Order: sequence, then structure tokens, then C-alpha cells
Amino acid sequence: MPTRLPNETPLRAPGSMELDPSGEGVAIEETRRLIASSKVEGTPVFNRAGEQLGAVYNFMVDKISGQVAYVVMSFGGFLGIGESYHPLPWRALTYDTGLGGYVVDIDKDRLADAPRYGADEDPFRDDEYGAQVDAYYRITPTS
Amino acid sequence: MPTRLPNETPLRAPGSMELDPSGEGVAIEETRRLIASSKVEGTPVFNRAGEQLGAVYNFMVDKISGQVAYVVMSFGGFLGIGESYHPLPWRALTYDTGLGGYVVDIDKDRLADAPRYGADEDPFRDDEYGAQVDAYYRITPTS
Repeated sequence: MPTRLPNETPLRAPGSMELDPSGEGVAIEETRRLIASSKVEGTPVFNRAGEQLGAVYNFMVDKISGQVAYVVMSFGGFLGIGESYHPLPWRALTYDTGLGGYVVDIDKDRLADAPRYGADEDPFRDDEYGAQVDAYYRITPTS
Repeated sequence: MPTRLPNETPLRAPGSMELDPSGEGVAIEETRRLIASSKVEGTPVFNRAGEQLGAVYNFMVDKISGQVAYVVMSFGGFLGIGESYHPLPWRALTYDTGLGGYVVDIDKDRLADAPRYGADEDPFRDDEYGAQVDAYYRITPTS
């Protein structure tokens, strides 16, 4: 979309690059700390080895507290199946400013068997689903 | 979108209606506490008198902390101008489960002169913009 700025704001704030000195894999709109909810889709998700596992499909946000509770990661044929979605507890992720994406701070074997669902499913309609996801992952402190 | 559920999840969790006993003005997908980032657009925003002022255009999310920092509210011709967007600090809003939307906990006259921008503007590109918005609103504790 067009990004013309109002006259009263400079094109870029002095500190706006600090969160991503490399800029690799990061669109201009994503070199800042705040991201629009409409633009989270596609943010890459990596494992701790720096290999991309998938991309953000959406965030599941607590509309009362405003805290992102889960990041839903989409896979294109990952694990040999069609596109599927893996909900990841927010606390299982860390944002890597160098990579310009999220890093899943969990064991790969645990992720392989993790809860996932198809494009035509909406398991979060069940308020208990989040608890099932939390129970599956042994959340490690974010580094 | 289709909302067929995986077999292992019931159609609705026992407590899933608790956050919205009335259900008024709330789509099925929004009767739960978590909302997908792709579905926040259109959530109504009311003043403290219960009058709708506008609707959510998007959330500005801190991608490091996962906390929603600003709710951008869209107006269709509000104040006699074309569609414009008002960024509201998260702390200036409370979610009303009965109304099924957010309530702006600020004086109407302050909102009338509040920072706003057009559809072709992207002021949050300037990392200082949020601070300007915060400075404009005298944030009151959320009730």
C-alpha cells in the first residue's frame, strides 16, 4: 500500500533501524518495533539453527489484555502434508532482529508431533484448545 | 471462512460464552477471549456513553513483547471528513464484553482533536509517532 507520510513526521526515526542492524529478510515496514496486525502474516519462523520452518499465519490475541497468546505458523507441505497450521505459545518464541523473524525455542522433535490443523479448521473456537497447546509444549524461558 | 472443527475438539467450550453473556453485536468467532489478528478489523469502538465512534482498523503490535500498543480506529466520515484513522493507546481502551467491542476511556473533546491520518499515510513508520500519540492522550487507568 502507499506509504506517504504526513508532513509532520520524518521518513524514518533515528533509532528505527536499531532492532534490525542487518535488515536481512525484513521488509521496510518491518524494520521497526511495531507491526500492524494486518502485516504479521509471512513473518518467517526459524528453528534455533537458523533454518526457516515456516511463516506466521496469524497471531491469536487476547482481546482483553492485548497480549499475543499464540503465533500460528503455516507450513507449505512441511512434514510431507498439505498446508497446515501450528499454534505456538508466544512464550516459546523469541524475535531475532538479525533474522527478522521468530525463533522457535523448542526441540525439533517436539515440534514435529505438535498440535496442528488444516486451513478449514478453527480449533481456537474451543477455548480449551489453547490449554491443550500449552500442555503440549514445555515452555522454556525466552532468551 | 469455513469453521469445521477437528474431531478432537468440541464445538464450544463450556466457558466460552462467559466473556460475552449478551452476545450482542458479536460474531460467533468473537465470543471467545482470543481473536485472530486477521479478524480484529471491524471490531466496534464505543465512547463511554455506548455510542459507536468507529471500528478497529488494525492493532499495532510490539513484535518483541507481543503486546498490543495501539488500536487504530477507522472512521467513515466521522467529524465530516473522509475515512481517517485514529491511533489509540491500548491503555486508553477497555474491552466491553456486553457491547462486544472496545470503549474509549477518554474525553470526547480530546478525541475530536486527536492525532489521525489518512488511508495513504503510515505514520508509525516513524518510531517517534507512538510517543506523540501517548503524549496527546492523558491515559487513564483501565477500569
